Amino acid sequence: MRKIRIAINGYGNLGKSAEIAARQFPDMALAAILTRRNPRSIQPATAGLPVYHLDQAASLTGMIDVMILCSGSMKDLPEQGPAMARLFHTVDGYDTHALIPEYFAAMDQAGRSAGKLNVIAAGWDPGLLSLQRLLSRAILPAGKDETFWGRGVSQGHSDAIRRIRGVVDARQYTIPREDAVEAVREGEDRELSTADKHERECYVVLEEGADAQAVAAAIKAMPHYFADYHTTVHFVSLAELKQNHAGLPHQGLMMRNGRTGRDQQHRQLYSVSLQLDSNPDFTAHVLLACARAAFRMAGEGQQGARTMLDIPPAYLSSLSSAELLSSIL
Amino acid sequence: MRKIRIAINGYGNLGKSAEIAARQFPDMALAAILTRRNPRSIQPATAGLPVYHLDQAASLTGMIDVMILCSGSMKDLPEQGPAMARLFHTVDGYDTHALIPEYFAAMDQAGRSAGKLNVIAAGWDPGLLSLQRLLSRAILPAGKDETFWGRGVSQGHSDAIRRIRGVVDARQYTIPREDAVEAVREGEDRELSTADKHERECYVVLEEGADAQAVAAAIKAMPHYFADYHTTVHFVSLAELKQNHAGLPHQGLMMRNGRTGRDQQHRQLYSVSLQLDSNPDFTAHVLLACARAAFRMAGEGQQGARTMLDIPPAYLSSLSSAELLSSIL
Repeated sequence: MRKIRIAINGYGNLGKSAEIAARQFPDMALAAILTRRNPRSIQPATAGLPVYHLDQAASLTGMIDVMILCSGSMKDLPEQGPAMARLFHTVDGYDTHALIPEYFAAMDQAGRSAGKLNVIAAGWDPGLLSLQRLLSRAILPAGKDETFWGRGVSQGHSDAIRRIRGVVDARQYTIPREDAVEAVREGEDRELSTADKHERECYVVLEEGADAQAVAAAIKAMPHYFADYHTTVHFVSLAELKQNHAGLPHQGLMMRNGRTGRDQQHRQLYSVSLQLDSNPDFTAHVLLACARAAFRMAGEGQQGARTMLDIPPAYLSSLSSAELLSSIL
Repeated sequence: MRKIRIAINGYGNLGKSAEIAARQFPDMALAAILTRRNPRSIQPATAGLPVYHLDQAASLTGMIDVMILCSGSMKDLPEQGPAMARLFHTVDGYDTHALIPEYFAAMDQAGRSAGKLNVIAAGWDPGLLSLQRLLSRAILPAGKDETFWGRGVSQGHSDAIRRIRGVVDARQYTIPREDAVEAVREGEDRELSTADKHERECYVVLEEGADAQAVAAAIKAMPHYFADYHTTVHFVSLAELKQNHAGLPHQGLMMRNGRTGRDQQHRQLYSVSLQLDSNPDFTAHVLLACARAAFRMAGEGQQGARTMLDIPPAYLSSLSSAELLSSIL
């Protein structure tokens, strides 16, 4: 069987991870990278891999089976997503939770108008943990679940700190509160806000002569981002930040406590934990597994937008039905 | 919309759990119980619920949408499964891992010959943990996973002890070995056999005058069941067994350590844990969620055998696509 020809649009952290990830998917061949920058400014990790400008996309439809959209959710995908869905089967990791219904509708319309199949909001959350919420709620209707994020870097919060006067650079970690995790694990029926569940740890590099106390106060007072949270601020040197906080680790934890039995006397605890050394690598791996599924669904004549909740799990695997029956069940 | 009419075939632990579980699935209506015993000997927990003899099954096809098969995998399902699949859409928890391909083929042939849709091997393992193995392997092709079972009661091992001369009753717990769980959690690349991963704890009630040492030796020497395992034997009174070991708790833990990045320098740990106060309750809940999916797949004209690996997850949920997009993703 011929390989699934994939291309990567956007060569930031996620795009770079996707390029390397493709080496682990033997049924896929990397066909191209697309970028909004000058293609000559991009040096792919893969020798000989062609780099095109995004404006050339329409001329590439014959050489690409699935386009992996690796650009940002905030500004890029709402525009690029539907445009690409008119040209290619696509997979993306759109992750602005509140706007997913709107983005789904735009992608669905674009995909159907062009006969394309478009998987959106794939990754670990939204994506894999969404799938776990669905499974645990479908199986255990009487119950309650919580999702915890971290310990991991939040790019948005790090950016917010960098905008404060006197700050050279910063890195913010979101950290689950141990007492909240423990309460859920023990099945306590407690209402928990996002701030009850998480605290925030900031590593900040100051400009020379900047007022540390004033910066710390400005961070802790920032509405939405920090004001509602228990926030710790550490001042470090730029060298220390680069040495100890350059990685992009993250973690996710979904726990559902269900109750079953005539008097709901039985507690059933369903937990899923992801401990990721590299957030972009893991997300890229999810996107590639979904690209395989997209290729298969498209091959059946399906079109329009899909999420991971719509994908028959077997379509994500390279194994045949017979192999799945004998080796995985 | 009218409710999905389900019936339960087999009124043991699993069938009884399924009857109670149905109360948590508001889109389902319990239509009947079927049994091989004298129907008058069955007293359902649900007032007015009709009980029929299995021989009457063919006369019930017009009043049942999905038949939940709750009889045993060892002797009952290989025969009853295909017979029922010629009459009804079915869901079962067939769990003899090694024979799943054979059972799938028999159910597939029976279902296709009658235009029925038949979900097999649903439950937590095989079933939900199989799905997790598939997902984690599809996303993280370079890696290794292990599944641990317990602490939980093994019915087969308990039965094996009861067959020893001098034993009145017994209960066997399968227990994961902490050192093995820790090794996997830490990402050690160690080959682990089932015996490396688990130990066995036995609670045994002796006949008066029986030789405790001889019974313990007989248990520990039993090939396949105990000889390869670290096995502990406790002698207890019948009253103590009934008081402290009457429940059917179980646990399952699946962990996959994946490696990503150019030099596979990033470790990605995917873990799923189920801590079940009641094994039959949880299994019954999985079967009912799958019955919902079976009803939908059948409504699309699909037929033949399926496993949980084939079911689009959204089909398991009572929520609409729009609700899933806004509340779960």
